[in-house]
Amino acid sequence: MKRIGVFTSGGDSPGMNACIRAVVRTATYHGIEVYGIMRGYSGLMRGEFVKLDSASVSNTVQKGGTILKSARSHSFRTKEGRQQAFDQLVNNGIEGLVAIGGNGTFTGAMIFEQEFGIPTVGAPGTIDNDLYGTDYTIGYDTAVNTALDCVDKIRDTADSHDRCFFIEVMGRDSGYIAIPCAIGGGAEIVMVPETQMSVEAAIETLRSGWQRHKTSFIVIVAEGDVEGNAHHVAAHVKAAIPQLDTRVTVIGHIQRGGSPTAADRLLGSQIGIAAVEGLMNGMKNVMAGIIDRKLVYTPFIDTISKKKPINQSFMRMVEILSV
Amino acid sequence: MKRIGVFTSGGDSPGMNACIRAVVRTATYHGIEVYGIMRGYSGLMRGEFVKLDSASVSNTVQKGGTILKSARSHSFRTKEGRQQAFDQLVNNGIEGLVAIGGNGTFTGAMIFEQEFGIPTVGAPGTIDNDLYGTDYTIGYDTAVNTALDCVDKIRDTADSHDRCFFIEVMGRDSGYIAIPCAIGGGAEIVMVPETQMSVEAAIETLRSGWQRHKTSFIVIVAEGDVEGNAHHVAAHVKAAIPQLDTRVTVIGHIQRGGSPTAADRLLGSQIGIAAVEGLMNGMKNVMAGIIDRKLVYTPFIDTISKKKPINQSFMRMVEILSV
Amino acid sequence: MKRIGVFTSGGDSPGMNACIRAVVRTATYHGIEVYGIMRGYSGLMRGEFVKLDSASVSNTVQKGGTILKSARSHSFRTKEGRQQAFDQLVNNGIEGLVAIGGNGTFTGAMIFEQEFGIPTVGAPGTIDNDLYGTDYTIGYDTAVNTALDCVDKIRDTADSHDRCFFIEVMGRDSGYIAIPCAIGGGAEIVMVPETQMSVEAAIETLRSGWQRHKTSFIVIVAEGDVEGNAHHVAAHVKAAIPQLDTRVTVIGHIQRGGSPTAADRLLGSQIGIAAVEGLMNGMKNVMAGIIDRKLVYTPFIDTISKKKPINQSFMRMVEILSV
Amino acid sequence: MKRIGVFTSGGDSPGMNACIRAVVRTATYHGIEVYGIMRGYSGLMRGEFVKLDSASVSNTVQKGGTILKSARSHSFRTKEGRQQAFDQLVNNGIEGLVAIGGNGTFTGAMIFEQEFGIPTVGAPGTIDNDLYGTDYTIGYDTAVNTALDCVDKIRDTADSHDRCFFIEVMGRDSGYIAIPCAIGGGAEIVMVPETQMSVEAAIETLRSGWQRHKTSFIVIVAEGDVEGNAHHVAAHVKAAIPQLDTRVTVIGHIQRGGSPTAADRLLGSQIGIAAVEGLMNGMKNVMAGIIDRKLVYTPFIDTISKKKPINQSFMRMVEILSV
Repeated sequence: MKRIGVFTSGGDSPGMNACIRAVVRTATYHGIEVYGIMRGYSGLMRGEFVKLDSASVSNTVQKGGTILKSARSHSFRTKEGRQQAFDQLVNNGIEGLVAIGGNGTFTGAMIFEQEFGIPTVGAPGTIDNDLYGTDYTIGYDTAVNTALDCVDKIRDTADSHDRCFFIEVMGRDSGYIAIPCAIGGGAEIVMVPETQMSVEAAIETLRSGWQRHKTSFIVIVAEGDVEGNAHHVAAHVKAAIPQLDTRVTVIGHIQRGGSPTAADRLLGSQIGIAAVEGLMNGMKNVMAGIIDRKLVYTPFIDTISKKKPINQSFMRMVEILSV
Repeated sequence: MKRIGVFTSGGDSPGMNACIRAVVRTATYHGIEVYGIMRGYSGLMRGEFVKLDSASVSNTVQKGGTILKSARSHSFRTKEGRQQAFDQLVNNGIEGLVAIGGNGTFTGAMIFEQEFGIPTVGAPGTIDNDLYGTDYTIGYDTAVNTALDCVDKIRDTADSHDRCFFIEVMGRDSGYIAIPCAIGGGAEIVMVPETQMSVEAAIETLRSGWQRHKTSFIVIVAEGDVEGNAHHVAAHVKAAIPQLDTRVTVIGHIQRGGSPTAADRLLGSQIGIAAVEGLMNGMKNVMAGIIDRKLVYTPFIDTISKKKPINQSFMRMVEILSV
Repeated sequence: MKRIGVFTSGGDSPGMNACIRAVVRTATYHGIEVYGIMRGYSGLMRGEFVKLDSASVSNTVQKGGTILKSARSHSFRTKEGRQQAFDQLVNNGIEGLVAIGGNGTFTGAMIFEQEFGIPTVGAPGTIDNDLYGTDYTIGYDTAVNTALDCVDKIRDTADSHDRCFFIEVMGRDSGYIAIPCAIGGGAEIVMVPETQMSVEAAIETLRSGWQRHKTSFIVIVAEGDVEGNAHHVAAHVKAAIPQLDTRVTVIGHIQRGGSPTAADRLLGSQIGIAAVEGLMNGMKNVMAGIIDRKLVYTPFIDTISKKKPINQSFMRMVEILSV
Repeated sequence: MKRIGVFTSGGDSPGMNACIRAVVRTATYHGIEVYGIMRGYSGLMRGEFVKLDSASVSNTVQKGGTILKSARSHSFRTKEGRQQAFDQLVNNGIEGLVAIGGNGTFTGAMIFEQEFGIPTVGAPGTIDNDLYGTDYTIGYDTAVNTALDCVDKIRDTADSHDRCFFIEVMGRDSGYIAIPCAIGGGAEIVMVPETQMSVEAAIETLRSGWQRHKTSFIVIVAEGDVEGNAHHVAAHVKAAIPQLDTRVTVIGHIQRGGSPTAADRLLGSQIGIAAVEGLMNGMKNVMAGIIDRKLVYTPFIDTISKKKPINQSFMRMVEILSV
C-alpha cells in the first residue's frame, strides 16, 4: 500500500483531529502517503483531496471539530455516486481508506468495498458511544465532561433558588451521556431510553422528595428518551406538582465541540495508528476499537447490527447515590 | 451601628458569594456583627437569620450561586409583609442591611426605608449588567465568559459541518452579554434589543455571505431582542435561504452558574467592603458601584429610573470585524 | 455491621469526595451508620469522628481535595498508637473501615486488622495511578487532564517563541501521568522512569529536530525519572545545544486539585459503593478496584507487593506521533 | 496609506491574535493592504512578510500565543539593522506599522521613526499590565484568571492537608497579577514589589494565624518581589516556624498561554481597530489604550518613562478580607 486516504463523516466529535493526526503520522512513519478527503463521502466523490504530511497536522491534537470537515451525502447512496468516488481514488492512486465516523459511515464503506474492492478500516468517531466493538468512542469522554460541567453550573443556580431543573443531554438512542452526568452531577433522577422509567415514576420521586422538604432537584433527560424531551417531561411534572419551580435547559450542540480530553486524544491516537496498521496488514470492513484496554478489530457487519448494552449497574448507582 | 444583615435577592449571579464574604469580613474588621438573611425578603419576613463570622465565609469566594439563597417574595410588596420584616429586624437588633440584587430588590429596600427607617446599601448583583450606577455588575464578566466558551465550542461544530448557528444568550433587555460574545466569538451577526436590526437585514447579510461561498455562520441573538428569540429568527432565515443548514442553541441557565472570574471576585469584594463602610457612614438608599475604576454610591432612585446606554461603538466593531 | 468509619489518608486526589459521598449514601441505603474520621490515622487515634448522613455529602461530588482532610501519622506506626485507635473505635461502636488512599494507608490497615481484628476495605485514591489491582486510581484522570491543560497553554508560548520547554509532571515512580500528556500534548520527547531514555538520547533527538529546522519542542519529564528533574535535564540539554532557547515549568501541586472529571466521579462512586458492600459481605484487607470495567477486590498484600506495569505500546506511540 | 505591516514583539500574551485579526479586518474594511511580519523586528529585518486578508485571520480570535510569532532581536538595536528593516519596508511598499508588544518594542519603533520616518502605532500586549497609557494590557485578564485557577486548585490540596503554600505568580516589577490572585484566591498574605512587606512581617502574620489554630495558608508572591522568589521566602518561613508544613509552586509560563478571556478578546479588538485608524489619521509614536473605557493614544515617550501606580486600596482589601 503506497497511498491512503482519510476522512471524517457523520456528526463531528472531539478527538477526530487526534485520530487524523495519528493516521497521518503513522502512515508517514511507515513510508505511506496520505491524502485528506474533505467533507466525507461528498468530497470523496468530488475529489476534494489534500496531501497531508507530518507538519499538516501539527497543533491540531487539541482542537475540537474536524479539520477535514464532515457532511452528509445522498449521492454516495447511489451506484453512480460510488462509481464516481472509485474513479477519483483510482485517478489519485489511493489504495485504502480510513473512515472516521459511525454506522452510517461504515455501511457506506462496506457497500463500496463489495462493489469496488477499496478496503476501508473504520474508526469510531461519535460522542454518543453507541457503537458495538469498542468500550468508548472518540469524543464521548469530552462530551460527558462538557455536559457535566453544564450540570455543575446549573446546580449552582438550582440550589440558590430551590428549583427543579430538567437538563437534556445528547446520546441519540442511548443513556451513555446521561448516566455519568447523573451520577457525577448529583442528579436525583435520570431518564434514559434503555429503561422504562415513566414520567409518572419521576413525578412520584419528586413528590416524595418535596414532602421530605427537599427543595432543589436535577433531572437528567436523555434526548432519545421515549417519554420525550426535557420540555415535555417538565410540563408533565409541573402539571402534577404545581408548587415546584421548574426550569429546562437543553445543552445541545455545545456537547459536540471543545478541546478533547486526555482520554479522547489518547483513544483517537491509538485508533488512528491501529487503522493504518490494519490497512497495511490487509484488513478491510472492520472498525478498530479498544475493548478492556486491548486493540480489537470488529467487522462492520457486527458494529452495524449489534447493540452495545449499557451497564445496568449504573442505574442502580443513581438510585443508591440519590438517597 | 452594631449589627447588620446581608441578603441576596432576585436572580443569582457568580460573585455574590465574594460580595457576601467581603461584607462579613469588613463588618468583622470594624467590630460589627453580621447576620445572613436566607432567601431574600422572604427570609427577612420569616426571620431566617444565621449569625456569620469570618470562618463562615471561608472557601466561598470561588463558588457560584449564593450561599444565602435567593427567592422572590410577593408578601414583601404588602405593608403587612414589610411590618413583619421590620419586627424581625428589631427583635434581632439588626440596624442596617446590605442588599445584593437588582432594581426589584432596591425598590423594595427603598420603600422599606421610607416606611420603617432601616437603611440599606445595595450591591449590583446580576449577570445582565443593565444597572445604572456601575460600569459592571457582579456576575456579568463570568456570564460573558461562560457564554463565549459555549460559542467557541459551537463554532468547532459549525465549521466542521458548514452550518449556520443561531445562539441565544441572556441579558434581559440589553445586548451587554450578546455583544462581547459576538466580537470575541467571531460571529457574523449580532441581534440586540438596542438596535433596530430586522430579521430581513440578517437574511441579507447571510445571503450575501453565502453568495461569496462562505459556508459557516454564527448569529448571536440576545434573549430580549424585539425580533424574538433564536428559534423564531432561525425559522425565518431558513424559510428565506433554504440551502442554509441551520441549528439553534439556547445557552440558558448555564450562564448563571459556575465559579466567578477574577474580575467578578474582585468587583464583588470591592463592593462588599464599600457597602458596609457606606452603612457605617450613615448612607442609605444607595447602590455601591465602580465607575471608571472609582467607587461611586448612586441613589436607588437613579439606578431604578435611569438606563445605562450600551457603548454604540461596539456595534460598529461587529461590523468591521466580520468583514 | 451497624456502624462504619471512612477516612482519607496520604496525598489527596480529586474524586475522593465522590468516593466519600458514595460510602455515606450506600451505607445509609443499607441502614448502616457512618462516621467520618478526620485527618486519616491521626484523627482515628484522637477520635476526631463526625457523624455523616446523606445531607452531609450533598454538593461535595464536584469538589477537589477531601472534606475529611488527610494527614501523615507517625504514631500509628507504633503499637501504642494503634491500641489508641482501636479504643476509639470500640468506644464509638465502629465495626469496619473504608480507607481511601494508597499503599502506605493499606499497609497500616492490614497491620491494624491483624492486631485488632477491625476489617478495612480500601479505595485507591491517588493521582499517580501506580496501584496494582485497578486500571485507574481515583484522581488520575483529573490530574492528567490538568497537566495536559498546562501543556496546551505552554505550547502556545513555545510555538510563539520557538522555544524548547521542559515540563515536569507528577507520578512518583511511574510515567502514568507523563505519557498521556506527551501523546495528547504533542510532545516530541517523554522521559519516564520505566524506560532507560538517557539525557544523551534526548539531546540527540532535539539536535536532529533542530537540524531539520524544527524550532519549538516540548519535553515531558516525569518527576521520578532517574535522569533527574526537569531543571537538571534542561541544564544538560542547554549545555549540549546552546542555540536552543530552553525554559522549564514544574506543574507541581496544581495537579492535585480541581474539580474531578466525570471519569473520576464515576470511579470514586463505583468504588465507594463496592467498599461498603464489601464490608457488609465480610471482606477485609482488600482494595476495591475496576479492572476491564469489572469490579475486583484485590488483597492488600498484592496491591502493596505487585507492580502494575505501564502499557509499553504507549512508548511506541510517542515515537510514531512525534514523527 | 495603502499598505501597512503588523507584528508582535516581546513576550507573547493571550489576545494578541484578537488584536492582529482586528488590524487585518479594519485595514481591509478601509481598503488598506496588510502584511504580517513574522518574529517581530527579526523578521522585519529579514523581510519575513506574509500577505494577510480577512480569511487569514478566521478562527484565530480564540487562540493563545501569536500567529505572527515573536522573537528578541539584537541587530535591530544597531543602525545597520534598522537600515535593513527600512529597505525591506520600502521594497514591499509598507508605509506604516502596528507594533503589538511592550516598552522594549515601542522604544525600537520610536528610534526607527526618528531615523527613517516610518510611523508606528503601538498596542499594549503583555500579561504584566505594567504599561502606562492603558488601564489594562492585552493578556492581563487571561493571565490573572489562569493564575487564579491554579490558586483555586492548590487551595483544595492546602486545605486537605493543613499546609502553607507559597505560590509565585508573574508580573515582572509589579503586583498587578499577584493582587487579584490574593483577593480572589482567598490568600492570607500577598508580597508585591510595590510595598515594603518584609519576610519578617509575613512570618509574624503566619505565626499569629497558627496560634489561633489556623492550619492552612496561601501566600502569593510576585516574581519581582524584593524579598526574592517563593522558594526563598518559603525557606525563611520554614526556618522561623518549623511546625508549618510548607510547599512552593511556581506557576510560570502557564500564565502566558491559553485561550484569551472575553475581556482580552474585546480589548485586543478595540485596540487593533484603533491602531489602524490611528495610522490612517497620521498618528505615530503613540500607543492605543483604553482608559476609563475611552480610547486614548499615549506618546511612546510617556508609556516608556512613566509608571502606572497600582491601586493602593487593593492592599487594604487583602488585609480586610483575610481577617
